[in-house]
Amino acid sequence: MLLKKTIGEIRDLDQEAMNQAQKRLDSLIKPPGSLGVLEDIVVRLAGITGDPRPVIGDKAVIIMAGDHGVVEEGVSVAPQEITAQMLPAFLTGVAGIGVLAKHAGARVVVVDVGVVSPVDFPGVLQRKVRAGAGNIAKGPALSVAEAVRALEVGIEVAVEEIERGASLLAVGDMGIGNTTPSSAILAAFGGYSAEDVTGRGTLVNDQVMKTKREVIARALAINKPDPKDGLDVLSKVGGLEIAGLAGVILGAAARRVPVLIDGFITTAAALVACKLQPKARDYMFASHLSGEQGHRLMLDLLQLVPLIHLNMRLGEGTGAALTMHLVEASTKILHEMASFDEAGVSDLEEDKILK
Amino acid sequence: MLLKKTIGEIRDLDQEAMNQAQKRLDSLIKPPGSLGVLEDIVVRLAGITGDPRPVIGDKAVIIMAGDHGVVEEGVSVAPQEITAQMLPAFLTGVAGIGVLAKHAGARVVVVDVGVVSPVDFPGVLQRKVRAGAGNIAKGPALSVAEAVRALEVGIEVAVEEIERGASLLAVGDMGIGNTTPSSAILAAFGGYSAEDVTGRGTLVNDQVMKTKREVIARALAINKPDPKDGLDVLSKVGGLEIAGLAGVILGAAARRVPVLIDGFITTAAALVACKLQPKARDYMFASHLSGEQGHRLMLDLLQLVPLIHLNMRLGEGTGAALTMHLVEASTKILHEMASFDEAGVSDLEEDKILK
Repeated sequence: MLLKKTIGEIRDLDQEAMNQAQKRLDSLIKPPGSLGVLEDIVVRLAGITGDPRPVIGDKAVIIMAGDHGVVEEGVSVAPQEITAQMLPAFLTGVAGIGVLAKHAGARVVVVDVGVVSPVDFPGVLQRKVRAGAGNIAKGPALSVAEAVRALEVGIEVAVEEIERGASLLAVGDMGIGNTTPSSAILAAFGGYSAEDVTGRGTLVNDQVMKTKREVIARALAINKPDPKDGLDVLSKVGGLEIAGLAGVILGAAARRVPVLIDGFITTAAALVACKLQPKARDYMFASHLSGEQGHRLMLDLLQLVPLIHLNMRLGEGTGAALTMHLVEASTKILHEMASFDEAGVSDLEEDKILK
Repeated sequence: MLLKKTIGEIRDLDQEAMNQAQKRLDSLIKPPGSLGVLEDIVVRLAGITGDPRPVIGDKAVIIMAGDHGVVEEGVSVAPQEITAQMLPAFLTGVAGIGVLAKHAGARVVVVDVGVVSPVDFPGVLQRKVRAGAGNIAKGPALSVAEAVRALEVGIEVAVEEIERGASLLAVGDMGIGNTTPSSAILAAFGGYSAEDVTGRGTLVNDQVMKTKREVIARALAINKPDPKDGLDVLSKVGGLEIAGLAGVILGAAARRVPVLIDGFITTAAALVACKLQPKARDYMFASHLSGEQGHRLMLDLLQLVPLIHLNMRLGEGTGAALTMHLVEASTKILHEMASFDEAGVSDLEEDKILK
């Protein structure tokens, strides 16, 4: 099956390409290492792509949309119909991700993998696996077969975009109520309590926070997700767009294409992807640290360091799109800067440098 | 005189424009405040420019270059001639700032305000006030008249660039040895010891670090800069490019144009500018937190929060150029996003939102 095949195709980074990129960086007219994380990014891009001088060309932000039965518990400030209403705004450029993707020079790909109502706006990819996930406070979000199918939708869309030329992917989410299953996923994998992982999402007040915490505790108690089994956690306390996003990450990794993860929801998907195939981690960059409580715990589990900290908590892929610029900058350093020799600049005094 | 006139022209932010920008932000299709620091940036841009819907158009990175007599004490790993050698590389695009300014869509302006040797590369602005600052370990860096003249060079260049159309400035430095005077400036204004403020600059080893620390302590003891007098600190333990950069900041603030500061050296210049006119602070954005020890202490004195933390420590304006993209993104949010009404998206449920 496609999922198993994709997981099997994900390889280690190309160490030789990384060594060559590092060697070139160290020859450039700057103190060694002085471009900091930009240097780390481009070295990893070399390892991901296998190209010692990686190039970023075409870029795409892939947004997976799905609904959540758990909203009937009153865990969100936003009415469920907003999930469907936002999808046109992503494509016409008047939502946050529309604006920031255009600013990044990336195209936006919107996938309905599980919205409750029909979405017939032109351009939205129709890949609905099911009309909304089940209420995790009462039972599983999805059957295992549905979870696998949604993962495969993600893999398929990632591969389609890569075949259309995408050399850098970002992932984004849309799904009213989706901080609740994402919190449950974090609790399951990290062994955390509902208290530890529950945040304010779209700024819920104290009363809704209390409900949300209880709902997450109940979802964990009823479903008993097995932290060693990614598919079990995903199907029991996840959701359709989370599955789709995990699939995009796996598809990108299998094709050796870097993928920028976004905030709380896409990082929950990243946890699932890494449980299914730990090597997938090396193909991701953590774009930003979300304002949502619990995001740092997720990134710690993944051992990823976010590139920016701008207290954003919108989702949609906005943080990921904003950092595409940094990833591109890192490649330009390697391609466009001259070495000390090439520029005719005097060498640094070796006897004074910290080794 | 130009310096005094410029300082007198710097006004408070336009509160009414800021209120209008905030009101529009709060109407857009996103949870309130969910674009985090991007929202803060655009509100401040409204206050700086007086335009409730500020626009970023033409952009320039202004690099001031100067030398430092203190290098004869052995405080740097780089030979002094590198200051002059790097200036062509900035303009031809093969140095770090050349690459990152091009990536940001900004022009690069290189000013020789005090390089020791003649620099006759086409495009370098010839505004030399003096061929290198004096050795601060033995006496003052500059006379007060030279410091004022170098400040005015900065003001003049900022105004020229703004009149050529620049709507966003970034500042960068070039000057072998300039972390030493910058550390001394920090120590003077913040009441810190040489120990607190001395960092590894271009990765000097332990022996050079020891020398550097002693030299900074000696510079403070011999010159006795008065922390309440910006011009005294600048002329006694500063340098020509640091003065020029402080002038650029003051010139930008007087013309109500935002200016991105960079790392350790430009932030030393920002401290000088703010001592001369505290209102200048509101016109600056701190682009990044440098890897150089002491930069955080400077930003704390200014009460500015850096936008990114990428462990960069190259100078040249590289961190500032890299964050122009974020400043532009903030304005696009305000211009291009639709309101809930305009997009036909359902309102959030008021009774559930955190107030």
